Amino acid sequence: MSDKKIFLAEKDIPRQWYNLAADLPSPMQPPLGPDGNPIKPEMLAKVFPMNIIEQEVSTQRWIDIPEEILEILTLWRPAPLRRAFFLEKHLKTPARIYYKDESTSPAGSHKPNTAVAQAWYNKKFGIKRLTTETGAGQWGCALAFACNLIGLKCKVYMVRISFDQKPLRKIMMQTWGSECVASPSNETHSGRQILKEMPHTPGSLGIAISEAVEDAVSDKSGNSRYSLGSVLNHVLLHQTIIGLEAKKQLKIAGEEKPDLVIGCVGGGSNFAGIAFPFVCDKIHGDNIEIIPVEPTACPTLTKGPFAYDFGDTAGLTPLLPMFTLGHGFVPEPIHAGGLRYHGMAPLVSQAAVEGLISPRAYDQIKCYEAAMLWARTEGTICAPETSHAIACTIDEAKKCAKEGKEKVILFCYSGHGLMDLAGYDKFLTGKLTAYSMPKHKIEESLCKLKKFPKAKKVKTGKW
Amino acid sequence: MSDKKIFLAEKDIPRQWYNLAADLPSPMQPPLGPDGNPIKPEMLAKVFPMNIIEQEVSTQRWIDIPEEILEILTLWRPAPLRRAFFLEKHLKTPARIYYKDESTSPAGSHKPNTAVAQAWYNKKFGIKRLTTETGAGQWGCALAFACNLIGLKCKVYMVRISFDQKPLRKIMMQTWGSECVASPSNETHSGRQILKEMPHTPGSLGIAISEAVEDAVSDKSGNSRYSLGSVLNHVLLHQTIIGLEAKKQLKIAGEEKPDLVIGCVGGGSNFAGIAFPFVCDKIHGDNIEIIPVEPTACPTLTKGPFAYDFGDTAGLTPLLPMFTLGHGFVPEPIHAGGLRYHGMAPLVSQAAVEGLISPRAYDQIKCYEAAMLWARTEGTICAPETSHAIACTIDEAKKCAKEGKEKVILFCYSGHGLMDLAGYDKFLTGKLTAYSMPKHKIEESLCKLKKFPKAKKVKTGKW
Repeated sequence: MSDKKIFLAEKDIPRQWYNLAADLPSPMQPPLGPDGNPIKPEMLAKVFPMNIIEQEVSTQRWIDIPEEILEILTLWRPAPLRRAFFLEKHLKTPARIYYKDESTSPAGSHKPNTAVAQAWYNKKFGIKRLTTETGAGQWGCALAFACNLIGLKCKVYMVRISFDQKPLRKIMMQTWGSECVASPSNETHSGRQILKEMPHTPGSLGIAISEAVEDAVSDKSGNSRYSLGSVLNHVLLHQTIIGLEAKKQLKIAGEEKPDLVIGCVGGGSNFAGIAFPFVCDKIHGDNIEIIPVEPTACPTLTKGPFAYDFGDTAGLTPLLPMFTLGHGFVPEPIHAGGLRYHGMAPLVSQAAVEGLISPRAYDQIKCYEAAMLWARTEGTICAPETSHAIACTIDEAKKCAKEGKEKVILFCYSGHGLMDLAGYDKFLTGKLTAYSMPKHKIEESLCKLKKFPKAKKVKTGKW
Repeated sequence: MSDKKIFLAEKDIPRQWYNLAADLPSPMQPPLGPDGNPIKPEMLAKVFPMNIIEQEVSTQRWIDIPEEILEILTLWRPAPLRRAFFLEKHLKTPARIYYKDESTSPAGSHKPNTAVAQAWYNKKFGIKRLTTETGAGQWGCALAFACNLIGLKCKVYMVRISFDQKPLRKIMMQTWGSECVASPSNETHSGRQILKEMPHTPGSLGIAISEAVEDAVSDKSGNSRYSLGSVLNHVLLHQTIIGLEAKKQLKIAGEEKPDLVIGCVGGGSNFAGIAFPFVCDKIHGDNIEIIPVEPTACPTLTKGPFAYDFGDTAGLTPLLPMFTLGHGFVPEPIHAGGLRYHGMAPLVSQAAVEGLISPRAYDQIKCYEAAMLWARTEGTICAPETSHAIACTIDEAKKCAKEGKEKVILFCYSGHGLMDLAGYDKFLTGKLTAYSMPKHKIEESLCKLKKFPKAKKVKTGKW
């Protein structure tokens, strides 16, 4: 049997991030301000440092990764590429299944790839403190980890119901020296307002974003900024190191290219990370099928329109051109908390408009079935988000078996599930619920978008 | 900066385990039966399969690792050797700190190294089902993982208080297809007996061992056996792959040999794993200091006598020659559950008698201080057991800084702490308790040993 793990030497780590904006056949449509006009970079200067804003609007193809960021990333990077021999054998498939293992980071997912970069650019710009929000805690942990190593203070507003029900991630953030408070809190104007109206609210990501942004922009010292874990261009940029490493590792494994690239998709960051370097190859003529997998409970790419919408629930962000279910959309409580996002990263959205990627939606029961088969063949327990990529991989590998086709499948193992075992328990005891979003609920939610400017569905080619 | 991670190719994985019994200057004293006479291998045949009993009594230096075991171990092995540059820098030490990262196994610790081997030998012998006990769940998880991949049924008796308070590991065991019940249970004679007398008992490792052994030996089909996660010779043998890999990796890193080898020690398995290949070098003349680190709350090697004692609380096992605090000794509830064992593996004990290893004891507060410093420099959250090795490493690295000595330190990072975050929370909120065992408590416990035959303290050399 060949090697199960393909390592890349630290000296061979990619030294540049890949920016898909440089290669998309049609240019990205700009974010719009409340007046419907494109916002100017400096309008975001109280929220993000200028060096990050520059990355956000950049159309440069390759952007150098500063040496000091690599110095921290190499604590766990290059991440291993693994071959799922045991799963292949179980499925009797001729497909060769590779997966990029992002669960080996100290925080347990791909999130630190951008957290370290964002903390570093903020520090470089003279910022002393970052604020952010977190739902189940994956992103909060990543930023806490990064700020600790870079030397920034960090405050995380954690959705109250998660804060109470999932104390483990809170302890991780505190271990890395971050402050973590339940949101809504008494520490911001918006938090106090909400607590006055709804003292027993479980909180929401929308509320937590409002608090984190307010905290950052209202810091009179000017030393605080806000940090976001997905959706925006610079976040996706930082994640491309995943796919760039995978490309080199596939070569080491003797594979010319993958036939299929698969990633789960919520805001879009791990999917973009594994997929964008291959989207580039597809634009330049390679025959690669690229599949983002979302939950049927939050079917942004498969059921939503491409439109201008807010990135957050409260409407504090600029309007972004993206696939969306409406910023007021509240997905059912599936276990894959990281995929419960109403919108989709504009870069991923434009790639979908262009037909460069082929979205699919899976129900969580099918995903947990896949996660169980994975645990019992490959031996590891994956995050509920990751199980979506695995479910699609299994389907495709079975198809290969049926058709006798020897495809190379690459997927992103975005994180481990050790902090999210409750879903496994529910699955094992038959208590897991299937969720599909009924059409009328989506239509209701989308009504709110009518007042916004239209986003153009510019589609230039066939791939 | 040099590489932070030193990988060994899968093809270079050690193909033999190292058996210290072959090199110990004085022969091991035999386990004794209830009558005080040495027990014969076949007396254990209802508990363990004969191929494992043969390993238990073997004095062969090198024992081949079957290819099918390597096939599973290579899911995560060879495990990375890492260099703790960030900690070194923080401590301003000239010491070079390497650690063998056993946290990368699917179960999160070194335990699967022997779980896979034991499951394989049982399967080979025709056994269909294994039973075991587990405290906090580390070992139960490892055996569940291994039995699933090898194709054995597995039943884990989990100490009731852990079963109730730490549901996460139970879910992991079930995910891997094992049955996990709270002990005492209604499913064994000894369990029912105890429940009758003490219906509200929180359970204990001693009770759980009794149930697991009874379950295995009373299975009338003859298809069940019992499996133990530490202490015994064959378990330590399987763990030597840790130190054998580390040796090859140190060479790759350009180090001729370590000056110091450090591991935490409870029953002895991870310590033996990292240390025994170097104990061998020490016997043959290398100048290496080898330090097992135990908790002050359970100071077996530093405060206990070398004597014959039972391996379990209930007195079901043979009498073993070892350092012990008495089989009735109940350690304080420190967070490092894996180090709360009254005895010490006979092979580790004999190495201590010979003066080949230099035991130390650390209080858990000092260990959590070390774990916090580790998390904030190297970025990962270690198991409470592992923190003992880190605390000692930090002490030694500081000494190097003071004395200006360039030592090479190697320690075993036995597991991650993601399932054991409660201790971090207590430390951060100032609620962690220091525990040292008062002398009279140890003496009280040791009274019970007087009726047993004496173990000879055979010491042959100076190292």
